[in-house]
Amino acid sequence: MATYKIKLAYDGTNYGGWQIQPNAPSIQELLQSALRILLKKETNATGAGRTDAGVHAMAQCAHFSGPDDLDMQRTQRSLNGILPPEIRVLEIEAVPDSFHARYSAVRKIYRYNINLGPIASPFQRSYAWHFPYPFSYGPLKEGAKLLTGTHDFCSFANVRVGGENETDTVRTIYRIDIVHTTDGFYLEYEGNGFLYKMVRNLTGCLMEVGGGKYPPEHINHILEARDRRTAGQAAPAKGLFLVEVIY
Amino acid sequence: MATYKIKLAYDGTNYGGWQIQPNAPSIQELLQSALRILLKKETNATGAGRTDAGVHAMAQCAHFSGPDDLDMQRTQRSLNGILPPEIRVLEIEAVPDSFHARYSAVRKIYRYNINLGPIASPFQRSYAWHFPYPFSYGPLKEGAKLLTGTHDFCSFANVRVGGENETDTVRTIYRIDIVHTTDGFYLEYEGNGFLYKMVRNLTGCLMEVGGGKYPPEHINHILEARDRRTAGQAAPAKGLFLVEVIY
Repeated sequence: MATYKIKLAYDGTNYGGWQIQPNAPSIQELLQSALRILLKKETNATGAGRTDAGVHAMAQCAHFSGPDDLDMQRTQRSLNGILPPEIRVLEIEAVPDSFHARYSAVRKIYRYNINLGPIASPFQRSYAWHFPYPFSYGPLKEGAKLLTGTHDFCSFANVRVGGENETDTVRTIYRIDIVHTTDGFYLEYEGNGFLYKMVRNLTGCLMEVGGGKYPPEHINHILEARDRRTAGQAAPAKGLFLVEVIY
Repeated sequence: MATYKIKLAYDGTNYGGWQIQPNAPSIQELLQSALRILLKKETNATGAGRTDAGVHAMAQCAHFSGPDDLDMQRTQRSLNGILPPEIRVLEIEAVPDSFHARYSAVRKIYRYNINLGPIASPFQRSYAWHFPYPFSYGPLKEGAKLLTGTHDFCSFANVRVGGENETDTVRTIYRIDIVHTTDGFYLEYEGNGFLYKMVRNLTGCLMEVGGGKYPPEHINHILEARDRRTAGQAAPAKGLFLVEVIY
């Protein structure tokens, strides 16, 4: 048996997220049942991280075990034949057996799409947060600067009910870029890891700062508080994209 | 009574097109029933042109009759409250009674999206034609040049079964721009009018030229033939956007 890394893009709109769960179809479930058909055995696909219901991926990564002589290009094509068009396999490559999609990841990049136009574009309705309120880029930039670097992000982490939670909540964000688009902008976060709902919580906070609810400096108090209740609302799932997992 | 011009954006994926029809929900039907609720009377909305099932609009235009004192901003907001998020009213403005959404239009702009990547993006699955075949921009450019100008586009017009058909099939295309995107390009057509399925038929032909099925010069024979069967397959509806109607 050999270990394979698989790279996937998916539109999360109609799925209950990456992780297998009882009440909704998940990306992992569809991928594993497609692998079961092709490899003719139960196959576990371990993802680099869970994405929540409605969250999208431009390049999620997972690993699975398969035969040594797996024809990777053919398997990719066959998987794309079985999977719905919302889920596409971008690449399959052989990796050392020590490779683990989650533990071998050294960095992740996420993108969060904001639509600032007065009317929500029909074409962005599942891919952006529509924010038609007063908004300034100045405070947003200052806020993003304060969040960049190594911090205890406890205030920006939700507790996963009934699931595993990180005890160490210190993470490093290398950059938060603000990239302008036709009708708004996206925030691109690159970090060594992100806690549960952290990107959506950071974005919710930054939009409160950009919307003038509190000044950028207030972010320091939120970080110091180490209390989820201080950081405001999470941004909606639909604006979030997992862009890349770096190994 | 006064005449109003209404500008709409819509995602045509789940609709049977602009025009009211017996077997599928249409944009016109939903708009008219929303207007009926707000204006408390049957209201006809006449579009600048029909868009087929699956075709999208960034700015379709229509006109309707309403009371002289209509609060246009409020009506716009109320319509957006009633209509599904796939259909958005961008603007309502008062126009002279002589205004007709179709007959007053002097130019129209359409865009056709092509995805050339090896794997169809899940995010473009309803908004682009996936064309993962050998393709060259040189012949495409030459072909687009030959189609620009005033021609009899009879070979590029489908016959509308049981509907009205144009007897004059001469039209002017002012420009066909080729605009590069992340994973392909779009063709933007500006003309004084387009025949039934003309943009999809022109795009189908240009992709046959770009794909090397026949040389660009063959387009002159297709134009001269005045026979729909000579121009090849129509491009799929999902890649087409009505961008603007110019009055």
